[in-house]
Amino acid sequence: MSTESVLDTFTGWAAMAAGAALKPYEFTPGPLGAEEVEVAVEFCGICHSDQSMIDNEWGNARFPFVPGHEVVGKIVRVGDQVRGLKLGQRVGIGWYKGSCMHCSSCMEGTHQLCRTVKPTIVGSNGGFANRLRAHWAWAIALPDSLDPSAAGPLFCGGSTVFAPLLEHDIKPTDRVGVVGIGGLGHLALRFLNAWGCEVTAFTSSLSKQEEAQRLGAHKVVASNDSAALKAIAGTLDFLLITASADLDWNALLGTLRGKGRLHFVGIVPSAIPVHVFSLIPQQKSLSGSPVGSPTHMATMLEFCARHQILPQVEIFPMSQVNEAIDHLRAGKARYRVVLDASR
Amino acid sequence: MSTESVLDTFTGWAAMAAGAALKPYEFTPGPLGAEEVEVAVEFCGICHSDQSMIDNEWGNARFPFVPGHEVVGKIVRVGDQVRGLKLGQRVGIGWYKGSCMHCSSCMEGTHQLCRTVKPTIVGSNGGFANRLRAHWAWAIALPDSLDPSAAGPLFCGGSTVFAPLLEHDIKPTDRVGVVGIGGLGHLALRFLNAWGCEVTAFTSSLSKQEEAQRLGAHKVVASNDSAALKAIAGTLDFLLITASADLDWNALLGTLRGKGRLHFVGIVPSAIPVHVFSLIPQQKSLSGSPVGSPTHMATMLEFCARHQILPQVEIFPMSQVNEAIDHLRAGKARYRVVLDASR
Repeated sequence: MSTESVLDTFTGWAAMAAGAALKPYEFTPGPLGAEEVEVAVEFCGICHSDQSMIDNEWGNARFPFVPGHEVVGKIVRVGDQVRGLKLGQRVGIGWYKGSCMHCSSCMEGTHQLCRTVKPTIVGSNGGFANRLRAHWAWAIALPDSLDPSAAGPLFCGGSTVFAPLLEHDIKPTDRVGVVGIGGLGHLALRFLNAWGCEVTAFTSSLSKQEEAQRLGAHKVVASNDSAALKAIAGTLDFLLITASADLDWNALLGTLRGKGRLHFVGIVPSAIPVHVFSLIPQQKSLSGSPVGSPTHMATMLEFCARHQILPQVEIFPMSQVNEAIDHLRAGKARYRVVLDASR
Repeated sequence: MSTESVLDTFTGWAAMAAGAALKPYEFTPGPLGAEEVEVAVEFCGICHSDQSMIDNEWGNARFPFVPGHEVVGKIVRVGDQVRGLKLGQRVGIGWYKGSCMHCSSCMEGTHQLCRTVKPTIVGSNGGFANRLRAHWAWAIALPDSLDPSAAGPLFCGGSTVFAPLLEHDIKPTDRVGVVGIGGLGHLALRFLNAWGCEVTAFTSSLSKQEEAQRLGAHKVVASNDSAALKAIAGTLDFLLITASADLDWNALLGTLRGKGRLHFVGIVPSAIPVHVFSLIPQQKSLSGSPVGSPTHMATMLEFCARHQILPQVEIFPMSQVNEAIDHLRAGKARYRVVLDASR
């Protein structure tokens, strides 16, 4: 039988100022909320957003800043009003750790669109720590058959590329492209291959060609090769943009067939100058989406367990968090870095 | 019993050069195609696209140019291979008058996306004439209960605003906005009111407020009033752009609720500078569509007959076509001009 484990202070790793290396940091969590679970962190992925927040790129980081929002761990405390979870259970927590539970978005199961949804690392401490708390609805049970040391990135990067497949009704007969083969893109390739689609990987560097094929791509196209884009004009049903770069959007829109959709999950720096002539004649769409809902995540985990899909990760001890961040900053991560909190 | 009526030459009205007034014009139609019907034109609407083509704005007009693609008339000849239509039947013909019938778009019922779809007035003579031919699939039977003198604009403008309601699964419980109260917009208001939606009209001039309400709007908002747009932020499910002007697209995107869609049927002059931050957090879409498919049109006509929806038209004799075009050019049309071919 599990018993509660209460700590007065939590220990983690924090940036004391924008762009700074992380240092050991202690903080007092306060009383546990009635609807919260507290998780003993086992593993935490490093997402590109963690790096953006450390550097305060979006101006919304609060220092000392404890990153981390791809957490896997075991529940060590449960509030009085927690539903569906129990002590000792292994769960994951992603970009969000709470929502109001009563607005129309929450009530219809799209909690990620709640106007007061609570990001895990905006205004509070994240998962580069020994403990993390979340609303019970946002702590998603991890199936036993999925390796917990690799599963963390599913809860942010994974759900971000999985949710659009559900939301936009991607069919196994569809031809789908993935632009950008990084933390998000490599998972999209694995998902879409198991989904049954014809999968085309678009990459800025054809040196990734063999890797893209190993990850599930049937075809690989250089995203900056306008002749190659022209050769596949009018063929794709769905094009998922996981890259964070300004690309030739009109050429990419051109690869879509009638009713095709160009869908963004990557934060592209500049506005996309789309002319209605690129949309109207072939009835095309342009759209974007954030991470998935709790139900999207549970559905994704069931699919991952059935197909044994996990991110490809490199594991660093949490004590070497700064080396891990440098590895990510250098563009060397293949494809997601995970911190092991036990080391 | 009907019998065929064969004419060696057709008579119509043509612009001899870009921007010129129309003049009487005779032309030889050649042999009737096996899959074509020939229609004796009774009425023909004037669409903004006719004016654009007369002025050769898009560079694709061939002179002498006979405009007209909102035709209502009776079938006077049928080719050997024509299906489902018979002599004497009253039909309508819109922006397209033919498609290949065997590509994947045609085979799945989205003939309007056929890569070789044949516009009625691009490269051939349109409906400002006594006769017009079309492939049988694109000549849509007009229900008896709809007034033929007003129905013409349904086949272009009407289907353009009706098709998105079907394609994007608009529900009677949705809150829908219509931007621009002209030839297309006034029909959209009538459709959406009968559809059961909460309908908001956006207009550049609040002088149209009472008319918009009479046409079916429950609310009217000035499209250039940023405070008014802010006041309805996050409330609309679908926003249909029938205007052809550059507007504050970010403010208009802001009026959408989560999963909302900004949909273009109007040809907006400049590229729309959409940033992914306007799309991703609330999972929004931007899209466009052309006129409807033959099935969209048949469904629209059934809906129009049930609810007695017709465009509000001003009828000019075909012999006064230049006066009618001047009326349209002066922005005075309320809301669609139709030519009566019998006068």
